[in-house]
Amino acid sequence: MRQEGESIVNGQRTDALAIGNRGLHYGDGLFETLVAAKGQPLLWDRHWQRLAQGCERLDLVLPAPGAIRAAIAELAGAEPFCAVKIMVTRAAQARGYRPSGRGTDWIVSTHPWMPPTEERHAGVQATWCRLRLATPNACAGMKTLNRLEQVLAQREWKPPVREGLMQDPQGLVIEGTMSNIFVAKAGGLATPPLTDCGIAGVMRAAVIDAAMRHAIPVSIEPLTRARIEQADELFLTNSLIGIWPVRDLAGHAFDVGPVSQRLLAILQAQGDAAFS
Amino acid sequence: MRQEGESIVNGQRTDALAIGNRGLHYGDGLFETLVAAKGQPLLWDRHWQRLAQGCERLDLVLPAPGAIRAAIAELAGAEPFCAVKIMVTRAAQARGYRPSGRGTDWIVSTHPWMPPTEERHAGVQATWCRLRLATPNACAGMKTLNRLEQVLAQREWKPPVREGLMQDPQGLVIEGTMSNIFVAKAGGLATPPLTDCGIAGVMRAAVIDAAMRHAIPVSIEPLTRARIEQADELFLTNSLIGIWPVRDLAGHAFDVGPVSQRLLAILQAQGDAAFS
Repeated sequence: MRQEGESIVNGQRTDALAIGNRGLHYGDGLFETLVAAKGQPLLWDRHWQRLAQGCERLDLVLPAPGAIRAAIAELAGAEPFCAVKIMVTRAAQARGYRPSGRGTDWIVSTHPWMPPTEERHAGVQATWCRLRLATPNACAGMKTLNRLEQVLAQREWKPPVREGLMQDPQGLVIEGTMSNIFVAKAGGLATPPLTDCGIAGVMRAAVIDAAMRHAIPVSIEPLTRARIEQADELFLTNSLIGIWPVRDLAGHAFDVGPVSQRLLAILQAQGDAAFS
Repeated sequence: MRQEGESIVNGQRTDALAIGNRGLHYGDGLFETLVAAKGQPLLWDRHWQRLAQGCERLDLVLPAPGAIRAAIAELAGAEPFCAVKIMVTRAAQARGYRPSGRGTDWIVSTHPWMPPTEERHAGVQATWCRLRLATPNACAGMKTLNRLEQVLAQREWKPPVREGLMQDPQGLVIEGTMSNIFVAKAGGLATPPLTDCGIAGVMRAAVIDAAMRHAIPVSIEPLTRARIEQADELFLTNSLIGIWPVRDLAGHAFDVGPVSQRLLAILQAQGDAAFS
């Protein structure tokens, strides 16, 4: 299995980055985390589209997609599966918040990963985080390198708990620390809007599209804690976990229900063996 | 004059950092920016105390102060003045938000700097930023590496404007993009609380202390835009600028008044020639 930390920076195999890189100094950059199966990145078009949209919002020059694909193939080509992290950051410049140049650095790294099949079918334990997501977040929706809220929130719980749900200052439930959330009720799905805070996950978009194509109604609407606890099913999504049903949320039990399992089967049938 | 980018990482002269460093991945770290005069860091005790408090909040191991002082002396010793940036970040670990180890990396770098004497006495032009600081910020007060709000806000204006003032979602004025703010009215000072967002600047604390020692009353209280515009004086503080009076705030004129100039003289008299 792939070791931690193999990486390519701007096309060169290296494990070091220039100290002046603005991703380090300010979190001035974006990232994507995805699965590669034998060097082929899954949900590539969606990941690339989100990265391109983020670069436009941050006024970052988008790298050439061919260079990134080549780096993924080089690092991940021999592996049945691995996790790939792509970072695009503003390059080193003179000190100060204001960007003074157009340079970007891109980094591709690979990490050990196997499909979490058991969690997808048996479900996981989750909890509530006390930390509230700050609003209005000027970077709402984007997967930026400013991730201290998630780092701090993950300190609130430990295994066997696998995820913590986060609320905004008004108490509306937004997302997990590393995942988006869906509830199923009476056969339909709901997931929170991410306009004031939160990250618009690629798997969230894939699940919404899959549901709509299969006549499962999806509503994007504010979700209170009560709405979550009264749901028939609660599940988490991201590009690595795929779909994880929640079977226990801080002592509140949920069934691993038919909607999450049907959506998993749809993702698999689309050809993504990683989502078995 | 010192070139951009000379740096020492964990005691070694280098211009490269391990790609897995969590400062890069998540902004999981803190920084201090200060003036060194012939290798002597100014306001050192205050900077070190803030760094230590931040490390405690983020559960980061504080480096040995002697190692940092030695790095500053090595890089900055020959210069009459230079800017020093200290970063303390969580070191490289396995992928994921949750810290899995106690390692920290520290970085000291030096940058060209000369005292901005003209700005301190003639004043500067400032403006209002549209970007609102998100609240409640779990890292309020700390100088973390999550600084995209400041990067985005500085895109809103250009020289000759030198600073932009930022408000919270309720419209209360919190700080500048790179400075704290004070208003003077009827001989007393006021500056906003930084409990929900903002960075508690070292120079802000030094100015508050200097004012109190010289019988200038200081109030820490919420400031509306109207309170700012009705003030006798408005000035900005940080460790590099010292004190900058604002003479024009988006077309609203202020006098460069006696309070800012008296505080500048007090800082100078404390022995900080950099604050001339």
